Amino acid sequence: MQVIVNAATSVDGKLSTRRREQVAISGPADFDRVDALRADSDAVMVGVGTVLADDPSLTVDDPERIDARTGRGDPPQPARVIVDSRLRTPTDATVYDDAAETVFLVSEAATDEAVADARTRDAVVISAGDDRVDLSAALDRLETHGIEQLMVEGGGELVFSLFDAGLVDELSVFVGSMVIGGRDAPTLADGDGFVETFPDLRLGDVERIDDGVLLRYTVV
Amino acid sequence: MQVIVNAATSVDGKLSTRRREQVAISGPADFDRVDALRADSDAVMVGVGTVLADDPSLTVDDPERIDARTGRGDPPQPARVIVDSRLRTPTDATVYDDAAETVFLVSEAATDEAVADARTRDAVVISAGDDRVDLSAALDRLETHGIEQLMVEGGGELVFSLFDAGLVDELSVFVGSMVIGGRDAPTLADGDGFVETFPDLRLGDVERIDDGVLLRYTVV
Repeated sequence: MQVIVNAATSVDGKLSTRRREQVAISGPADFDRVDALRADSDAVMVGVGTVLADDPSLTVDDPERIDARTGRGDPPQPARVIVDSRLRTPTDATVYDDAAETVFLVSEAATDEAVADARTRDAVVISAGDDRVDLSAALDRLETHGIEQLMVEGGGELVFSLFDAGLVDELSVFVGSMVIGGRDAPTLADGDGFVETFPDLRLGDVERIDDGVLLRYTVV
Repeated sequence: MQVIVNAATSVDGKLSTRRREQVAISGPADFDRVDALRADSDAVMVGVGTVLADDPSLTVDDPERIDARTGRGDPPQPARVIVDSRLRTPTDATVYDDAAETVFLVSEAATDEAVADARTRDAVVISAGDDRVDLSAALDRLETHGIEQLMVEGGGELVFSLFDAGLVDELSVFVGSMVIGGRDAPTLADGDGFVETFPDLRLGDVERIDDGVLLRYTVV
């Protein structure tokens, strides 16, 4: 499986404000790039924090890209994968609509009732891990489920956990020309943080796009 | 006065680990660039948190740059300016050595005893603000003191406060090809953070340097 993390941050590494309110960091050219990356992916993954804060659809917008997917025998939309240990996603969340398949990665901490309820709503539920989702095991299960290219759109807790588990292959960051600030604002990689050894990246393309710059890395 | 913020961050915007331990983010080419920027500045400013965490010298290394400064009638080293509301800098800190002039920006919260002690040690003490340093007033005083170009080397609390007060003219960030992570790790701009309006930057040069990329911005 190929795991590609994609995010837009301010120059100071923030994904949004301390209030978790979305900020228009990127512009139309970057939105289009993200749409293309979604269309090339088998699934788009976020953490439950992102669902609770933004209620995203995680779907491809461009009808031509959707047609291209069906033309090559793929579903019209990539699957939506929510990492949600306790299955806290509200049942009125947009990811429960019928625009795309939805997969929840949960842990044993999710109640049987919540799992049964999600399945009633046509979601796939994969359980791996005791208290928190065992991402390595869960991604293996996703691969068995047919997901070869997985795009990760945040948030910072999930991105850190994926780096911590050594599961990230590529990282693309659009750095918008703004400062958000805030010691409590979410950043591209939160979690406990690394303290002695750090994931080593190799800088690939550097491209000016919209009013900012897109930095692409491969994980060494 | 021209205020230039310069920093090195990980891709996720961190200045160091959650333990406040310095990480080798940049390399020799960026160190040399920072040395040149210091040599071009009348003063180099940091917050007291940076002094407590790193005990920096803030001096120019390159003898030719030092000669060039004295050749044009400047002191051999730029002044060191420490923003330290309560004057907590330990008296054995490197900034108290005689390598360069040292200026403390303090508030009324600094005790008379601490101020007198710092002055005994040949430091200049400028008081502005009640509880915290009034940066706008303090920078006016620095300008009166002959400081025209002020380079700011962090940390994140000071950088946020300067942006919040509208005092930053330029921002240079070396983005190292690594992830540090950590919801409690210091970032380029911490403080309370902006929530509705954000400092607007214009992206200037983008330059690959060492294993990372240097992003330069002017504040709009």
